[in-house]
Amino acid sequence: MTHALPLPADLVTPCLVVDRDVLERNLVAMADRARDRGVALRPHAKTHKCLEIARRQVALGAVGLTVATVGEAEVFADAGFSDLFIAYPLWAAGPRGRGLRALAERVSLRVGADSSEGVELLAGALVGTPAEVVVEVDSGHHRTGVDPERAGDIAVAAQRLGLPVAGVFTFPGHSYGPGQVRPAAADEGQALQQAEAALRRAGVDAGLRSGGSTPTAALVEPAGLNEIRPGVYAFNDAQQVELGSANWDSVALTAAATVVSRHGTSIVLDAGGKVLGADRSAWATGNGRLPDHPEARVTALSEHHATVTFPAGAVLPELGSTVRVAPNHVCAAVNLADVLLVTANGAVVGQWAVAARGRNA
Amino acid sequence: MTHALPLPADLVTPCLVVDRDVLERNLVAMADRARDRGVALRPHAKTHKCLEIARRQVALGAVGLTVATVGEAEVFADAGFSDLFIAYPLWAAGPRGRGLRALAERVSLRVGADSSEGVELLAGALVGTPAEVVVEVDSGHHRTGVDPERAGDIAVAAQRLGLPVAGVFTFPGHSYGPGQVRPAAADEGQALQQAEAALRRAGVDAGLRSGGSTPTAALVEPAGLNEIRPGVYAFNDAQQVELGSANWDSVALTAAATVVSRHGTSIVLDAGGKVLGADRSAWATGNGRLPDHPEARVTALSEHHATVTFPAGAVLPELGSTVRVAPNHVCAAVNLADVLLVTANGAVVGQWAVAARGRNA
Repeated sequence: MTHALPLPADLVTPCLVVDRDVLERNLVAMADRARDRGVALRPHAKTHKCLEIARRQVALGAVGLTVATVGEAEVFADAGFSDLFIAYPLWAAGPRGRGLRALAERVSLRVGADSSEGVELLAGALVGTPAEVVVEVDSGHHRTGVDPERAGDIAVAAQRLGLPVAGVFTFPGHSYGPGQVRPAAADEGQALQQAEAALRRAGVDAGLRSGGSTPTAALVEPAGLNEIRPGVYAFNDAQQVELGSANWDSVALTAAATVVSRHGTSIVLDAGGKVLGADRSAWATGNGRLPDHPEARVTALSEHHATVTFPAGAVLPELGSTVRVAPNHVCAAVNLADVLLVTANGAVVGQWAVAARGRNA
Repeated sequence: MTHALPLPADLVTPCLVVDRDVLERNLVAMADRARDRGVALRPHAKTHKCLEIARRQVALGAVGLTVATVGEAEVFADAGFSDLFIAYPLWAAGPRGRGLRALAERVSLRVGADSSEGVELLAGALVGTPAEVVVEVDSGHHRTGVDPERAGDIAVAAQRLGLPVAGVFTFPGHSYGPGQVRPAAADEGQALQQAEAALRRAGVDAGLRSGGSTPTAALVEPAGLNEIRPGVYAFNDAQQVELGSANWDSVALTAAATVVSRHGTSIVLDAGGKVLGADRSAWATGNGRLPDHPEARVTALSEHHATVTFPAGAVLPELGSTVRVAPNHVCAAVNLADVLLVTANGAVVGQWAVAARGRNA
């Protein structure tokens, strides 16, 4: 049980608990890594959605924050964050366009785009403000983003409409798979360099090459990227551990859960999918992990139950005892909670509001 | 496109939209079914978490509400609901025990139990109040609940400690699978009758035989159960449609989402796992369905993106258009939202707070 972190007594479970010292180590390590490699760090705030953590990231040298939505940007702008990148190909029609313009008038704003139609709406919303467009390119995840060779078309469309272009960005989401981290990181750097070259050929001089993802951040080659946008690294999760991008000692957030039932080699916890989130990649070994019982697996998850199965002969946690569960995907778990309890050395030392929770629009 | 329901213009997507008339039909149909078969209806409020819907369920004849946690019970008790069943084997230690006692002193309360240790804590919290214990039995889902033959032991333990026993309950969660509904419903009725017989043999006279689940509610045999606790039926979801327990015309809640990207035969929507939830059973055909495009599948889901793939040759929704997505599991989606927009005939007619959102403890 070398990974055991003490849990405060009398927690009302289920609840999300952050170990302050592990979090701090994670934040410092990524800040140092970015500095050592000469790349800007713009952490994705969708993971933690907490003002306190974002402030610490900036204090440690982050150039600004990444967010996914106008609503998230509004929360952080209201709290005084002045440099925000909405890394999403926003469809800036109607009220969303007006919200975007209001943001651009008060903070330094960058916004993603991956279509000329999207750029037209962005122009309608943003021309006359200092906001910049960043062209999203597909580096192999095949979600949003244009082929790197087409990045110049989007950039030219933006410039013609009067929108400044900062550069290009990608999310190498295909890094999320066993053995995929290194090839995805290579794709990421290559796609960004290729896209920058396409911009240059189109006569657009824009230097930002922004990459993402906690798994690939460990492998950043300065030649490929000049900005990284990892999010999960603040907390880590079962997925990062199973990918080899984190270890149990760097998991800063867990759900505290009570054993409510015991049968055979299984226990049932009161933290279900409404606390842990239900994300489960095909390669995950279960629906979450117990850092203090690495041999156990969360073999079933319903809304208020997690069934945890142990190997035959294992000593099961007692009925009524409190155990820690690392969610598969911590971003999903945080977005389910209104507050995170902050602990240090086994005592609750505060709580942080999940300020941007549910701000999906 | 026979299932198309009009969506209001200028929605800020993503957001959850309830069609008031479809909801009403669903509520009436289940109330009628319970009445016709002579069983009590105690809807599970974890699905909708909305006071307005719970009030309508009671007005239509529900004997009370089912909830999963003390926190949910508190929300509904505060709003004046006077008959609540916490269908969960609560571990009533510390603050949870005190919260439970406070509830028992102001509403008619029933609480689940599946261990003698759990019953001891319930006794510590509840003796002296009129609260009743309901013994949870396992009817084949193998989550919580004792073997029906052991139900008498738990009931006797409760009575010895001064806790009245109302009867037995089960959740036939193994009904969630193709072809599983009918056998699971048979298991459910059989387990409850077997458990009641075990109680009688142990000298406990308690008549409640409470079953659950929207799929099996359609198949209730009056001989097996005298109370049903379906939840999902209020809204239905992609999972119920794929199970054959609902059809597109009875899906009352969808996420409104904007097409933000288009590539080949796929579109990308701005409603991801943080809006739809990430629940996906092994037998599900994707991560949600589009009622107006039954031929399409949600083939990938990330936090703020749903990738929807169409058959070759299909006419794809336009970039920037708004489409409806039925989540796989509506309970998870509702628990991610702070409000539900209520529509009728294509116009927003109100909004309901998800009053018990996030009340997991």
